[in-house]
Amino acid sequence: MPDQRGTAGLFSPVFGRGGGAIGDAEWVQALLDAEAGLARALERAGLAPAGAGKQVTAAARAADFDVAEFGTGLTGNPVPGLARALARRVGREAAPAVHRGATSQDILDTAMMLLARRSIDAVTDDLALAAAAAARLAVAHRRTIMIGRTLLQQAVPVTFGLVAAGWLTALDEARAGLAAARRRLAVQFGGAAGTLASLGADGPGVAALLAQELDLALPVLPWHTDRLRILDAGTAMARTTAVLGKIARDITLLAQNEVGEVREGDPAGAGARPAPEGGIRRGGSSAMPHKRNPVAAIAVLGCTRQVPGLLATLVASAEHEHQRAAGAWHAEWEPFTALLRLTGSAAAWGTELLSGLVVDAPRMAANLAATEGLPLAEHVTALLSGEMGGARAHDLVARASARAVGAGLPLRDVLLGVAELADALAAAGITPEQVEAALEPAGYLGATDVFIDAALAAHSAHFQTQITD
Amino acid sequence: MPDQRGTAGLFSPVFGRGGGAIGDAEWVQALLDAEAGLARALERAGLAPAGAGKQVTAAARAADFDVAEFGTGLTGNPVPGLARALARRVGREAAPAVHRGATSQDILDTAMMLLARRSIDAVTDDLALAAAAAARLAVAHRRTIMIGRTLLQQAVPVTFGLVAAGWLTALDEARAGLAAARRRLAVQFGGAAGTLASLGADGPGVAALLAQELDLALPVLPWHTDRLRILDAGTAMARTTAVLGKIARDITLLAQNEVGEVREGDPAGAGARPAPEGGIRRGGSSAMPHKRNPVAAIAVLGCTRQVPGLLATLVASAEHEHQRAAGAWHAEWEPFTALLRLTGSAAAWGTELLSGLVVDAPRMAANLAATEGLPLAEHVTALLSGEMGGARAHDLVARASARAVGAGLPLRDVLLGVAELADALAAAGITPEQVEAALEPAGYLGATDVFIDAALAAHSAHFQTQITD
Amino acid sequence: MPDQRGTAGLFSPVFGRGGGAIGDAEWVQALLDAEAGLARALERAGLAPAGAGKQVTAAARAADFDVAEFGTGLTGNPVPGLARALARRVGREAAPAVHRGATSQDILDTAMMLLARRSIDAVTDDLALAAAAAARLAVAHRRTIMIGRTLLQQAVPVTFGLVAAGWLTALDEARAGLAAARRRLAVQFGGAAGTLASLGADGPGVAALLAQELDLALPVLPWHTDRLRILDAGTAMARTTAVLGKIARDITLLAQNEVGEVREGDPAGAGARPAPEGGIRRGGSSAMPHKRNPVAAIAVLGCTRQVPGLLATLVASAEHEHQRAAGAWHAEWEPFTALLRLTGSAAAWGTELLSGLVVDAPRMAANLAATEGLPLAEHVTALLSGEMGGARAHDLVARASARAVGAGLPLRDVLLGVAELADALAAAGITPEQVEAALEPAGYLGATDVFIDAALAAHSAHFQTQITD
Amino acid sequence: MPDQRGTAGLFSPVFGRGGGAIGDAEWVQALLDAEAGLARALERAGLAPAGAGKQVTAAARAADFDVAEFGTGLTGNPVPGLARALARRVGREAAPAVHRGATSQDILDTAMMLLARRSIDAVTDDLALAAAAAARLAVAHRRTIMIGRTLLQQAVPVTFGLVAAGWLTALDEARAGLAAARRRLAVQFGGAAGTLASLGADGPGVAALLAQELDLALPVLPWHTDRLRILDAGTAMARTTAVLGKIARDITLLAQNEVGEVREGDPAGAGARPAPEGGIRRGGSSAMPHKRNPVAAIAVLGCTRQVPGLLATLVASAEHEHQRAAGAWHAEWEPFTALLRLTGSAAAWGTELLSGLVVDAPRMAANLAATEGLPLAEHVTALLSGEMGGARAHDLVARASARAVGAGLPLRDVLLGVAELADALAAAGITPEQVEAALEPAGYLGATDVFIDAALAAHSAHFQTQITD
Repeated sequence: MPDQRGTAGLFSPVFGRGGGAIGDAEWVQALLDAEAGLARALERAGLAPAGAGKQVTAAARAADFDVAEFGTGLTGNPVPGLARALARRVGREAAPAVHRGATSQDILDTAMMLLARRSIDAVTDDLALAAAAAARLAVAHRRTIMIGRTLLQQAVPVTFGLVAAGWLTALDEARAGLAAARRRLAVQFGGAAGTLASLGADGPGVAALLAQELDLALPVLPWHTDRLRILDAGTAMARTTAVLGKIARDITLLAQNEVGEVREGDPAGAGARPAPEGGIRRGGSSAMPHKRNPVAAIAVLGCTRQVPGLLATLVASAEHEHQRAAGAWHAEWEPFTALLRLTGSAAAWGTELLSGLVVDAPRMAANLAATEGLPLAEHVTALLSGEMGGARAHDLVARASARAVGAGLPLRDVLLGVAELADALAAAGITPEQVEAALEPAGYLGATDVFIDAALAAHSAHFQTQITD
Repeated sequence: MPDQRGTAGLFSPVFGRGGGAIGDAEWVQALLDAEAGLARALERAGLAPAGAGKQVTAAARAADFDVAEFGTGLTGNPVPGLARALARRVGREAAPAVHRGATSQDILDTAMMLLARRSIDAVTDDLALAAAAAARLAVAHRRTIMIGRTLLQQAVPVTFGLVAAGWLTALDEARAGLAAARRRLAVQFGGAAGTLASLGADGPGVAALLAQELDLALPVLPWHTDRLRILDAGTAMARTTAVLGKIARDITLLAQNEVGEVREGDPAGAGARPAPEGGIRRGGSSAMPHKRNPVAAIAVLGCTRQVPGLLATLVASAEHEHQRAAGAWHAEWEPFTALLRLTGSAAAWGTELLSGLVVDAPRMAANLAATEGLPLAEHVTALLSGEMGGARAHDLVARASARAVGAGLPLRDVLLGVAELADALAAAGITPEQVEAALEPAGYLGATDVFIDAALAAHSAHFQTQITD
Repeated sequence: MPDQRGTAGLFSPVFGRGGGAIGDAEWVQALLDAEAGLARALERAGLAPAGAGKQVTAAARAADFDVAEFGTGLTGNPVPGLARALARRVGREAAPAVHRGATSQDILDTAMMLLARRSIDAVTDDLALAAAAAARLAVAHRRTIMIGRTLLQQAVPVTFGLVAAGWLTALDEARAGLAAARRRLAVQFGGAAGTLASLGADGPGVAALLAQELDLALPVLPWHTDRLRILDAGTAMARTTAVLGKIARDITLLAQNEVGEVREGDPAGAGARPAPEGGIRRGGSSAMPHKRNPVAAIAVLGCTRQVPGLLATLVASAEHEHQRAAGAWHAEWEPFTALLRLTGSAAAWGTELLSGLVVDAPRMAANLAATEGLPLAEHVTALLSGEMGGARAHDLVARASARAVGAGLPLRDVLLGVAELADALAAAGITPEQVEAALEPAGYLGATDVFIDAALAAHSAHFQTQITD
Repeated sequence: MPDQRGTAGLFSPVFGRGGGAIGDAEWVQALLDAEAGLARALERAGLAPAGAGKQVTAAARAADFDVAEFGTGLTGNPVPGLARALARRVGREAAPAVHRGATSQDILDTAMMLLARRSIDAVTDDLALAAAAAARLAVAHRRTIMIGRTLLQQAVPVTFGLVAAGWLTALDEARAGLAAARRRLAVQFGGAAGTLASLGADGPGVAALLAQELDLALPVLPWHTDRLRILDAGTAMARTTAVLGKIARDITLLAQNEVGEVREGDPAGAGARPAPEGGIRRGGSSAMPHKRNPVAAIAVLGCTRQVPGLLATLVASAEHEHQRAAGAWHAEWEPFTALLRLTGSAAAWGTELLSGLVVDAPRMAANLAATEGLPLAEHVTALLSGEMGGARAHDLVARASARAVGAGLPLRDVLLGVAELADALAAAGITPEQVEAALEPAGYLGATDVFIDAALAAHSAHFQTQITD
C-alpha cells in the first residue's frame, strides 16, 4: 500500500520523527493484527476450523491492502471494508472466522490499544536515553555553578547539575506514567452492543483468548463507551510532552546569545540526514554564519504545544452515548494518533537534544559573576544577623545593595569599600574574609548536592524497578 | 510527488471529504505559488531578469517535487530546501530570483493564506448549497407542525420549517464570517527580521507587487509575530463547524428510532462510491436490516468535535516571541491544516446531509399528538384567563393537567369530560369548541411564520450581497 | 473573612455543589495550613523557638484574615502579603519562624496539594455512593431487557442491569484514579530557587518534617517547574467527569419523552432547598405541567463540559521556565481550582442522580416490542444456518426483514405468515416454535449476566481494597 | 447583596483587575436590566399597564437582591427565581409584566450580551491607551537600533520603534475586532421554544422594542441554539489576549537581566495600592534587592494563557440540541464570564505595562555591538557581490565570519585585518570605508521607517474611523 503518514510527509521530519512515525501503514497493520488475533482466538475456542488462525494471520499484512478498497465513506469507519477485504484473501474455509462475533469498534479500539503500546514502547526507550543523558549531566555538572532564574529574572545560585537533576526526575516520572498506562491497555471485544450475543455462551472465553493472543489486558467488561483507557494512554503522552516541553524551553532560553550557557550539539548521526546537495547546515543560515538555531529544542516545542488541544478533544469526546457513540467515537481517531505521533517525535528530538547538549561552564560562571554579588545579599544578611541582629543586618545590607545597584559596583566593593559600611562591619566583629566568604556562590548552594543525589538514586531505583518488573 | 494527505488516507473518506482534501500536494503547491509570485514581483520591480517570473512559475509544479529532498529535519521547516530545489529547476539566470529577499516564514505564512483561501472558497460553496437546502426545507415545511424540545424534553409546538429557518440563518452567518476572513488574508513578506533590509529601499514595493500577484491583501507591516490572521481564518472555520455540528446533532436526535422524524436520504451520487464488491450499504448493517445509521450526520460530528482543541492550539500559539517564534510558529502548521481539512469535510458531509434529508411529517404529527395536549396547557390557560382571571384559570388548568398526566388521558378529555371541570368552564362561558381550538397546535405557533419569512429574506439579501460584492 | 466562592455565588448551586464548594475561604485556609505546617516543622528541626509551631497554627485561621490586606497586586501572588499578615498575628518570638526558608511558590503549591486532597476525598466519597447506586441498579435490573442503541439507533437487546454495570465499572475506575493521584500529592519546599540555601544544611530535614506535618508525600526534589503533580490531580478529576458525563448523557437520552425509560427521582433532601416562596418545583415549569427537566443530569453536563478546556490549560501551562515560571505558574491557579470545584459539583449531582433514578421497565419492554423483532433477525439467521446453510439462511431472513419493514409488520408475522417463507422454514424442518424462540430477546443476551457479575465482583474487590489499603 | 466576584477575591488583583472586575453583582444587574428592558418594551407594546416599565426598572437594582433567594439548584438556572423575586418587589399591577413572554434563556442570553458590551467597552478603552503608548514608543524609538531576534537567536538589526509599531498594529486590529463583535451583540427573545407563542402576534414587535430599550441588535430570529454571537464575543476577547500575550512575552524576554533592554516602570498610581504596612515593593523581593520582577507582564501572561481553553469550551458548547440545549448552554456561563474577566484584566495590566515601559537604548546598542558585526555579514556580501560576483563574495564573507566566530574577533577586524582578506577586498576595489559602512547597523534597516510610518498612519486612520463611526 502507498504509505500515507498520519502527518503530511512534508512536515514529518519535524512532527513524525523516530517513534512518531505513525501513519496508514501502522494503522492498517494494527487493525489486521486485531482481526488476526481474533481468528486465532476463535480457533482455540473451537469456533473456527483448525488452521484458520494461521491462515488469517498470514493474510493480515498491511502491505497487501489498499485503503481505497475499504469503502470507508459508506459506513463511516474502515473496519467493515477491511474485514471483507481480509476475508477475500483467506481460503473459503477460514473466511467465516474473519471478524466473527466482532463489531467494528472491537477491532478499531483494539487497534488503538496496539498502536498505543507501540508508541509507549518507543517513547519509553527514548525517555530512557534522555534520562541517561540528564543523569550524566547531573553528575558532570554537579558543581558547575550558574545563576538560578525565577520569573525570568536572576535569583540565587544553583548548579547546572541541579537543573539536570530536575529534568531527570521529571523524565523518570513521565516514564513511570507510560508504564502504568501500558498496563491498562486492554482488548476490546463486545460485539454489536456489548453482549457478545452472537457467540452465545462462548463470548467471554473468546475475549479472554483474544487478550492472550494480543498480550493485552482483559477488561472487566467491554469498554465501548467507557473511554478511560483512551484517556489514560493520552494522558501518559501529555505528561511526557509536558516534561519534554519544559526541558526544551529551558534550553532555548539558556541558548539565547545573551545567555549562551548551553547550545545544541551536532546531532552526530542521530537521525539527521545530510541535505541533498549539502549547503543546508543543521540549525544554520547561509546568510548569517553566527546563527545556530536550536532546531531540536524548537521541534520539541512545535510538537509539545499541539498536545493540550488534542488531549482536550479526547476528554471532551469521552461522553459516549448508550452502547456506541454517534460522533464522539469517530472524533477520537485522529487526535489519538496525533498524540502518539507528536509524543514519539518530541521524545526522539528530546533524546537527541539532551544527548548532544553542549554546556558552557565558563559562560555560566561569567553570567553569575556579572551579577556582582547581589544574589548573595541574602546570605550576607544571614551572616551579619548573628552578630548584629536581624533588623540591623537587613538594613545594612539593603542600603549596601541599593548603593551597589545605583553605582554599578560589586556588592563586595560597597560592603568593604564604603567607609560607613566597613566601619559597621568592623564594629560588629565581621572580618573582610567573612564577607568575601559569604559572597562566594559556592557557599550558598544549600541542599543542591543532596537533591542531585536523591534524583540519581531515584533514577537508579526506577531503572532497577523497570528491568526487574 | 506521492500524494500524502494531511489526514491518513485511511480516514480521509470521513475527515478529508470534498473541500477537505488537503495534504502534501496542496501544501507544496501553495509554497511554490508563493515563491513563484515573489519571482514575478521581483521581475516587475526590476530586481530579477526579464522572464524570471515566468520561468520560476513554470517550474513551480508540486508534482515535480519530492518532499524528501527538502531536508526539513535540518532546518525545522521545509522552505529552505524547497527554495533550493526550485532554484535548481530554473535556469541559471532566474535562479538568484528564487526566494530573494524572503525568509522561510514569508513563504510558509503566505502559503497558509493561499490554503486558507482555497478552503474558504470550497466551504463557502458547500455552505451555499447547504443553505439553499435549508431554505427549501423552511419553505416546504413552513406548516409541518412538530413538538419543540428544550433540555431534551418536549415543550411547545414549532414547525419543522422554523427549525430549518434557524439552521438557514446560522449557515448564512457562518458564510458571512468566511467572507470576512477571506478579506483579511494577506501576503507575508518581511525578510529575516521584518525589515526587508536585504532589498534596501525596494522592499515595500516588492511586497505590494507580491500582494497583487497572489491577489492577497497587503498588510500594514509584516505580521510574522502578529498571528491574528491565522486566528481569523481558524475562527471562521470554527464558526462554520459550530453551525454544522448543531445541525448534525439535531438530525441524529430526530433520526432516533423512537423519534423518527427525519432520516438521511440516499446520497444520490453525492460523493458516495459503491463498495468494491457491493455488499456494503450506506449506513447499513448486514445483520440488522432495520438499521440505517445516519452516516453523514455522524461524520459531521466526527469532524466538528475535533475543532475546539485545534482552535485552542492556534490561540495558545499566538504568543510569538520577538521577530520569529521558537516553536509557537511551528505548532500552527498542523492544526491550521487540520482545521481547514475538517471544516471542508464537515461542509461536504453537511451539504449532502441537508440536500437529501427525508422529513417524516406524519411521524412529527404523531409524536405531537402523543403529547395529548399538554404542551398547549399554557394556551388554554391564556384563553380562560380572560374570562375567569389569571389565578383561577391557572389553578383549573394545573389541576386538569395533573389529572391528565396521572390518568394517561388527553388534556381535552379531562377538561371536557370531567364533570367538575366542564362545569367550571361552562360557568365561565367557555364553549367546548373554544377549548378544542385552544388545544390545536396550529393555533399556538406565535411568530413562527414571521421568523421563517425573516430568515428567508435575510438569506435572499445575503445571497444578493454575495453575488454583487 | 467574607466568603467569596471561586465560582460566582450566583451559579454555585449548579457548579459549586457539595464537595465542589471551594472558594477564597478554602484557599486561604490551605495557604495558612501550609505556613503553619512549616512553623511546626521548623520548631521540630530546632530552627524556631519552642511553641512557635503552636502559636502560628493557632493564628492560622482563615476567618481572621481579609484577602484585601495581602497586597496581591504588587507581587502577583498573595503569599508574601499573607505571610506578613500571619506574622503580625503571632507573638514577636514566633514571627521570624513564619515563612522561614520558603518562597511563595512553596506555600502556594503546597496549598494546591491540600486543596486537591480535600476535593479528592469529597469526590471519592460521592463516587462511592454513586457506585453503590449503580451496583444496586445492576442487580435490580439484571433481567430488565431493553433495546441497546448504537450510533443513536436501535441495535440488539441488552438489559438495563448491563448498562448500570458499565456505569459501575467506570465509576470504580475513576475512583481508583483518584486514589492514585492522592498518593502522588507531595509537599513543595525548595526556597528561592530550589536549593533551600537559606536553611543551609537543614533544608532537606525541614522538608521531610513538613511532609510529615501535612501528611503529604516527600518528593525526590522540589518540583517548582515539574508540574506533573498538578497534571495528575487534574487528570484524576477529568477522568471522573468523563465518567459522570457519559452517565448523565445516557440519562438525558433515556429520559426523552419519546424514549421515557428513566427519569430523575425526587431529590429527597439530597441538597435541594425549597424555593423561598415555594412555587418552583425541581425540574419543573409552571406553564407546562408535563415538563420534568432532568436537572441533575443537565447540571452534571454543565460541569463536565467545562473540564476539557481547563485540563488543556494545565497541560499547556506545564512548560515552566528555569526555576520558576513567568506566567505559566500563575495561569494554573484558577483552572486548577475550577477543575476541583466542577468535579466536586458533578460528583454531588451525579450521586443524587443515580441514587434517585427511576427506571420504567414496562416502557423499556414496550420500546423493545416496538422494534417488532428486527433486532433479532441476526439470531434467526443463526438458527436457520444450521439447517439450511448460511447463505440461504441469510437470504431468507433478509427478504423477510425487508418485507417486515416495508409493510410495518412484525418479523414474526412475516416469517410465519407469508406462505413462501413459511414453506421454506417447514421444508428445512424449522418449527414455528423455534422461530418464536429465536425472536425472544431474552434468549439473545449473550454474556450479559457474566459481565454484570464481573462488574459486581470487581466492585466488591475494589471496595475491599480500598478499606484495607 | 454580598459582592461575590466571579474570580475568587483572593486572586482578583491579578485576574480581575480594572475592566476585568466582573462578578455576581454585575451578573445580577445584567439579568435585571434585561427583565426591566422587557417590562418597558411590553408597556410600549400595550401589553403591560402604563408605568409598569418604570416600576420594574426602579426595582431592578442588584444591590437589593440576594442570590440565595433564587433557588437556582431547583431549576438549574437563576432566572425563574430572580423573576419571581423581582415580581415580588414591584406593585401588584406591574408584577404580571415581569418576565411576560420570556423564557429563562431569553433573559440569561441577553444578560450575557449586556455583560459582553460592558467588557468590550472597558477593554476597548484600555486598548486605546495601550495603543497610544505603543505609538509613542514607535515614534520615540524610531531610530533606537537593537538586534532583531528570531527563534530566540540574534538575527539582523531592527529598531525598537519597529517593535513598538508591530505591537501598535496588532493592538489596533484587536480593537477593530472588538468593535465588530460589539455590533453583533443582539437581544435574545423567543419564549419557550423560539416562537413567542404566548404573545400571539405581538411577539416580534416586543422583540424589536426590547432591542431598542437595551440598545442591542435585533436578530433575524431567536438564536437560542445558534451560538455564533457567543463565539464572536469570545473570539474578540481571545484575539485581544493573543495580542497582549505576545507583547507581554516580548517584554519578559527583553527584561531578562542578561538582555536588560526594557523594564517595567513604576505604576504611578495605575491601580497599585501600597501594601498595608509598606514593605512590599511592586515586583520586589525583600531578600534580593536586585530583583525587579516584571509583575504586570507576568500578570498579563497569567491571564492570557487561560484563554485558549476557555474559548475551546465555548466552541465545543456550540452544539446546542433542538430548541434549548441540555448542558451545553449551562457550560457557557462560567467560561464566558471568565473570558470577559481575564481579557479585561489583561488589558488593564497591559495598558499599565506599555504606558510605563522603560526602554534602555544604551543597553540595546551594547547588545547589538556585542554581536561584533556578524548580523551584518549579509550586508557586506551584498556590497561585495556587485564588485566580485555573488559566489566569490559569499565565499569570502563566509570564511571571514567563520574566522571571526572562531577567534572571537569583530567581523570588521577580520575583514580588514587579515592580510588575505584585506588583499582580496583591495583587489576588488573595495575600500575599508565601504566595509565599515556596510557593517553599520543603521545602514541595514531596510523598510523600517516605512513600516513605522504605515503603522502610525493606520493607527490614526483607525482612531478617526472609531470616533466618526
